Amino acid sequence: MDFAYDARTNALREQLLAFMDDHVYPAEPVLEEQLADPDRPAWSVPPVVAELQVEARKQGLWNLFLPGEHGAGLTNLQYAPLAEITGRSPQLAPPALNCAAPDTGNMELLAQFGTPEQRERWLRPLLDAEIRSAFAMTEPEVASSDATNIATRIERDGDEYVVNGRKWYITGAMNPRCRILIVMGKTDPDAAPHRQQSMILVPRDTPGVTVRRGMKVFGYDDADHGGHADVLFENVRVPAAHLIGEEGAGFAIAQARLGPGRIHHCMRAVGIAERALELMCRRAGERVAFGRPLADQGVIQDWIAESRVRIEQLRLLVLKTAWLMDTVGNRGAHTEIQAIKIATPSTVEWILDKAVQAHGAAGVSQDTPLAQLWAGNRTLRLADGPDEVHKRSLARRELRKYA
Amino acid sequence: MDFAYDARTNALREQLLAFMDDHVYPAEPVLEEQLADPDRPAWSVPPVVAELQVEARKQGLWNLFLPGEHGAGLTNLQYAPLAEITGRSPQLAPPALNCAAPDTGNMELLAQFGTPEQRERWLRPLLDAEIRSAFAMTEPEVASSDATNIATRIERDGDEYVVNGRKWYITGAMNPRCRILIVMGKTDPDAAPHRQQSMILVPRDTPGVTVRRGMKVFGYDDADHGGHADVLFENVRVPAAHLIGEEGAGFAIAQARLGPGRIHHCMRAVGIAERALELMCRRAGERVAFGRPLADQGVIQDWIAESRVRIEQLRLLVLKTAWLMDTVGNRGAHTEIQAIKIATPSTVEWILDKAVQAHGAAGVSQDTPLAQLWAGNRTLRLADGPDEVHKRSLARRELRKYA
Amino acid sequence: MDFAYDARTNALREQLLAFMDDHVYPAEPVLEEQLADPDRPAWSVPPVVAELQVEARKQGLWNLFLPGEHGAGLTNLQYAPLAEITGRSPQLAPPALNCAAPDTGNMELLAQFGTPEQRERWLRPLLDAEIRSAFAMTEPEVASSDATNIATRIERDGDEYVVNGRKWYITGAMNPRCRILIVMGKTDPDAAPHRQQSMILVPRDTPGVTVRRGMKVFGYDDADHGGHADVLFENVRVPAAHLIGEEGAGFAIAQARLGPGRIHHCMRAVGIAERALELMCRRAGERVAFGRPLADQGVIQDWIAESRVRIEQLRLLVLKTAWLMDTVGNRGAHTEIQAIKIATPSTVEWILDKAVQAHGAAGVSQDTPLAQLWAGNRTLRLADGPDEVHKRSLARRELRKYA
Amino acid sequence: MDFAYDARTNALREQLLAFMDDHVYPAEPVLEEQLADPDRPAWSVPPVVAELQVEARKQGLWNLFLPGEHGAGLTNLQYAPLAEITGRSPQLAPPALNCAAPDTGNMELLAQFGTPEQRERWLRPLLDAEIRSAFAMTEPEVASSDATNIATRIERDGDEYVVNGRKWYITGAMNPRCRILIVMGKTDPDAAPHRQQSMILVPRDTPGVTVRRGMKVFGYDDADHGGHADVLFENVRVPAAHLIGEEGAGFAIAQARLGPGRIHHCMRAVGIAERALELMCRRAGERVAFGRPLADQGVIQDWIAESRVRIEQLRLLVLKTAWLMDTVGNRGAHTEIQAIKIATPSTVEWILDKAVQAHGAAGVSQDTPLAQLWAGNRTLRLADGPDEVHKRSLARRELRKYA
Repeated sequence: MDFAYDARTNALREQLLAFMDDHVYPAEPVLEEQLADPDRPAWSVPPVVAELQVEARKQGLWNLFLPGEHGAGLTNLQYAPLAEITGRSPQLAPPALNCAAPDTGNMELLAQFGTPEQRERWLRPLLDAEIRSAFAMTEPEVASSDATNIATRIERDGDEYVVNGRKWYITGAMNPRCRILIVMGKTDPDAAPHRQQSMILVPRDTPGVTVRRGMKVFGYDDADHGGHADVLFENVRVPAAHLIGEEGAGFAIAQARLGPGRIHHCMRAVGIAERALELMCRRAGERVAFGRPLADQGVIQDWIAESRVRIEQLRLLVLKTAWLMDTVGNRGAHTEIQAIKIATPSTVEWILDKAVQAHGAAGVSQDTPLAQLWAGNRTLRLADGPDEVHKRSLARRELRKYA
Repeated sequence: MDFAYDARTNALREQLLAFMDDHVYPAEPVLEEQLADPDRPAWSVPPVVAELQVEARKQGLWNLFLPGEHGAGLTNLQYAPLAEITGRSPQLAPPALNCAAPDTGNMELLAQFGTPEQRERWLRPLLDAEIRSAFAMTEPEVASSDATNIATRIERDGDEYVVNGRKWYITGAMNPRCRILIVMGKTDPDAAPHRQQSMILVPRDTPGVTVRRGMKVFGYDDADHGGHADVLFENVRVPAAHLIGEEGAGFAIAQARLGPGRIHHCMRAVGIAERALELMCRRAGERVAFGRPLADQGVIQDWIAESRVRIEQLRLLVLKTAWLMDTVGNRGAHTEIQAIKIATPSTVEWILDKAVQAHGAAGVSQDTPLAQLWAGNRTLRLADGPDEVHKRSLARRELRKYA
Repeated sequence: MDFAYDARTNALREQLLAFMDDHVYPAEPVLEEQLADPDRPAWSVPPVVAELQVEARKQGLWNLFLPGEHGAGLTNLQYAPLAEITGRSPQLAPPALNCAAPDTGNMELLAQFGTPEQRERWLRPLLDAEIRSAFAMTEPEVASSDATNIATRIERDGDEYVVNGRKWYITGAMNPRCRILIVMGKTDPDAAPHRQQSMILVPRDTPGVTVRRGMKVFGYDDADHGGHADVLFENVRVPAAHLIGEEGAGFAIAQARLGPGRIHHCMRAVGIAERALELMCRRAGERVAFGRPLADQGVIQDWIAESRVRIEQLRLLVLKTAWLMDTVGNRGAHTEIQAIKIATPSTVEWILDKAVQAHGAAGVSQDTPLAQLWAGNRTLRLADGPDEVHKRSLARRELRKYA
Repeated sequence: MDFAYDARTNALREQLLAFMDDHVYPAEPVLEEQLADPDRPAWSVPPVVAELQVEARKQGLWNLFLPGEHGAGLTNLQYAPLAEITGRSPQLAPPALNCAAPDTGNMELLAQFGTPEQRERWLRPLLDAEIRSAFAMTEPEVASSDATNIATRIERDGDEYVVNGRKWYITGAMNPRCRILIVMGKTDPDAAPHRQQSMILVPRDTPGVTVRRGMKVFGYDDADHGGHADVLFENVRVPAAHLIGEEGAGFAIAQARLGPGRIHHCMRAVGIAERALELMCRRAGERVAFGRPLADQGVIQDWIAESRVRIEQLRLLVLKTAWLMDTVGNRGAHTEIQAIKIATPSTVEWILDKAVQAHGAAGVSQDTPLAQLWAGNRTLRLADGPDEVHKRSLARRELRKYA
């Protein structure tokens, strides 16, 4: 047992920390300005991101999330501490390194399950950040945490598939540079529950695809990274070769996509928590009320200590999960992958809430990143299925040990 | 001891409930539509509100909050259950009845402390909903929960006062129909701590008043009721007769303004909690996951039961506080007025959070009112001083009992 | 709506508060001494209790719990504030006034459902505190919260009933002065679920009744009030006239017994919480750590304020429930009776926990009453069915409103 | 980074797990029986413990806690997972392996700071389990979390030291086989705050030592491992050679004693949590209520999942702390040593509470180990200073990072 990062991780961490200091944090106010520009094209990514990408790529801080030949070749355990660092500036750092969801998961999926043609057409430009992508899973009308509920149909018709359905909260799909959607739907409603679904590539400009509106998250439209689209698919026809993997493989592919994405999300959330704790400490040191800095107040100290204690535990659990995925695979890490989904959002939410409170009105405003971070993190208690579903599943496995 | 509402309260409740069903709830989608209209003048109140006002006034559901000759003459205990009902549709019902903050507090203040001239010029049009007002207390640079921190200066210069300072989160002040600001500032920084502040009437169009921007609350600009302004006062000159009460009375007036406003806020919050619980129950009854409606899930049932149990306790505490204010006055109700400030936001937040969670992605979206209600309620843990300040004060009084 | 106690309640409160000061609190150390006496007969009630009873009866503070001709004739709402006061010294005050569970519930039951013979033989000496009684409901082998699970059999055989089964946590039944057990069992397992059970009077010295041992509660045997017995019933024969009410009425009688008992328990628990808060405040004022009294610590202040805020809400809910029972009856108060069962134990547990913590090691010791109060209160989350069962039931009623 | 135990740890874990199955768990009912024996000498350790010790020593499962030549030579990281296993049966397994507090800490202390004579006279028989020891730190009259409060005096008088003071909650000191007390007291009240205290060896039978009574923990006297004594020291004279280390070294020695003990306590607590979770799962699988096993109830599933998620995080944090102590020493692990003190008791308490609740009345009784485990764990929120003190200290370090 050894709790030290390995040499490559340490080297990359140092390099990335310097990149954050030299480029990312200074770009945060620039981003704010560009977002506030009334002439900005709707839903476009502000130009500062592309500038950061140039610098990151030059430094080799590029596609770090992707194992294997197509990416940086890091293990999950090596990438996880880097994902944490990017979480400290979650609007800028992940896209700067071409490591932002949902593109990361889509690139992994294409690298692992795509045909050479699919990889050439979509993976290559994604790896080069020439285009963006989206993943269309959640539906408004059904509890999508139960994949068997999915109502979107993907039906074979000659050399084509025809897609019909409605998806929402399709992150990134408002961005005009988003060119491709990976759509989950049912090819065979009569198959066994986990063999009914398939995934298919649908170019965003295919006739029948209507991007209806941007969904909001507690008032935020998240326009800086392409928002969250409400998308209608009406008799959308794509070539049969757009299917990813085989018919009925949708559920299995979704599961495979999930594990590493979970690690990324959770480690970024740890980074967010660290940022929040830092802001809370700074505020507590500066702000005076009733004759003393907030830092002297017992209740604030309690929040700070609890935050530190919770972060340390959470990070270790996510890192262990990454290690398990590297050593025994997704299946062997099943309990831990669920555990971090359960533990992360609520832990980070608690810390963000306290950081907001310590900031007073500034905490809920646009003048600190805290409120927006809170809102983004809140959705993680719902995304990929609400926590309650994961708890039930984890509990059942636990109960089986003693049955 | 008697837990039944009196006859007048019951009659008004029935009338108001009918008004909600017949006019307010049907107006909710209209409000959404009008707010989404791209041609809407910035920060203006959508026209549906004025239509509701006409109807409410016709029915005598008007200025119910205001005791005494200028208003409906209800006691706090009689008005409280009505405020709860308006909380069920907090964007529409309070303004429809001319019972929306911050105008309510401002009208009370003018009725109680204003000169005849001040009442004629500002109170009358406010009572008729011809104009709107704002209350400028909070400052970005200091912990405003401690009134002695307030930095805005109000200096006498001949027949005028000169105001300099910066205020933010001035609710309603973005609204072009907001004509008058009540500004809290220091007239005498050398006086005893609670005699340093005064309040003064500053017409919004006075030279030197700059409304800089709308502050956000978790991404919401709350444009439908005039937003929350960031306002700069630079050598703003108003006649000396604009002072409310005497020099040094600012703190005492603020305290007097606080009690009834607290009851209104808290009862509206109870109404919000009831609305959230209703939405949670409806959702739980309709949504199916893993073969059963959510309503059959033990965890959801736990949320629903806890919500009901917490609401019942909270409502009683607020009502008792109203009764105390009516019978022994603000000072005698000190502990309870603080207690409801402490209890209400966190209780209602808990319920809203569970209602959001039960709705999945819809819960954080613009398609249910829950996320916006959550954000608005979240600010109550900060507004009028963070909960922590009130807890400390209440604890000290408790400790003195046994010292 | 009126939150003031009526005149009779106020008079009795004053009288009882004086009785607490003059007799009960001074008797607390005496009780400790008598309990520690190695020569004390096992499971006997220390003599100080009888002395207090003499004084209480002399003052007319006797059987206050019992409405109607047999008792003091108070309403639930009148008795509730008195029960709170007795809760401040829960080992002494309730028995001193002949108002201690389970005798109170048993007396109510006999007064309401007993035959004249049953009342003469058992109710009269109970009202005079000549004997004690127990209520035998809970069984170790089944989830007794679900009455249909009850396994004890009560079978008719000629002029007798034969009882077989095992009950535990039969409070008071270790006391040698406990003479009568009211036993719940099944007379007809084939009847409709709520018509299977009956209640029957079983004198404790009937052949076949074996009091096996005293059950503990977190290490406490609660010997001062007769402990909690584990009782075996083996072919126990009693005359048919010992049945209470008719065959099949057991469930209905249990429900009727429950309402007032719930009020008593909950109000005593409010009194316990008040006592705990007082002890916490006193300790905080006296104890110095790191150069300041605990009372100056923000975290302690937070506990004190939260305790006050929670107590105020809880008391109001219990009082309203008492009022509902008086005005619309047990059935109309169904939701509230469950709500106080859900709210009370956890609220009071939270406060006791903080009071323990503020006392350091003394808090878990025999030198303050806190640990024992905590343990007793903890069982209320289980007694009469675990909270979770009540929440589910309450939630279902709530859900039906919107179905 | 590597989350796998090393080979020696794995071998010892397997051996210990077998020892638990073969010897410890079967001894649990024997212990219960022996404790219930009315003829048992007061405060003596039941004989089954000595039998287990023989077997454990034969197997080499002996003094595993002790690094260096005197013990098994394991690192903290190697011993920690073994301590967890012993925590599953905390009354039997730790003493069986001669790894029970407070002897462990005392042996470490003697091994590290004792003179050869002290080691020969006290350490050797402790290592052989011939005698037991106690550590006398906590005082009833002062907040002992602040060492500068300690009032016990240790005064030099010729060749002797004279000890005067009162200590309580001296674990193990009721046991007649406890022969030696390590007493913390002030030798120089005028020295710098952390140089005022010294530690001295006081044989339990020294004149002037009065063991007054056993302190209780929520009704438990913990007689099986020597209880918790209230001890008076009145002009107790011991040779000057009984001082441990030098005068003024008491605080530093106490700090050194603390780190490893913290690991042991916390890992045993993790084992307790695992045992509680197992019992909860088994109960949930067996118990039927309202027609279904508890295991099917969503709320129970939620408890089980949360328990697993919290245990996994907690264990990792304790293991990392052990690793830090091994690699960078106590000082470098300062934050983590405090973090596990903060995180462990509350986490384990939550799990024990839920396990109690799932067991109904049995959970609070003597028929499951849960209530007693709960009570023992509850004291950890107080022992070695209340959590609140550690949080404040940790927070201050965190705040300094950003000052």
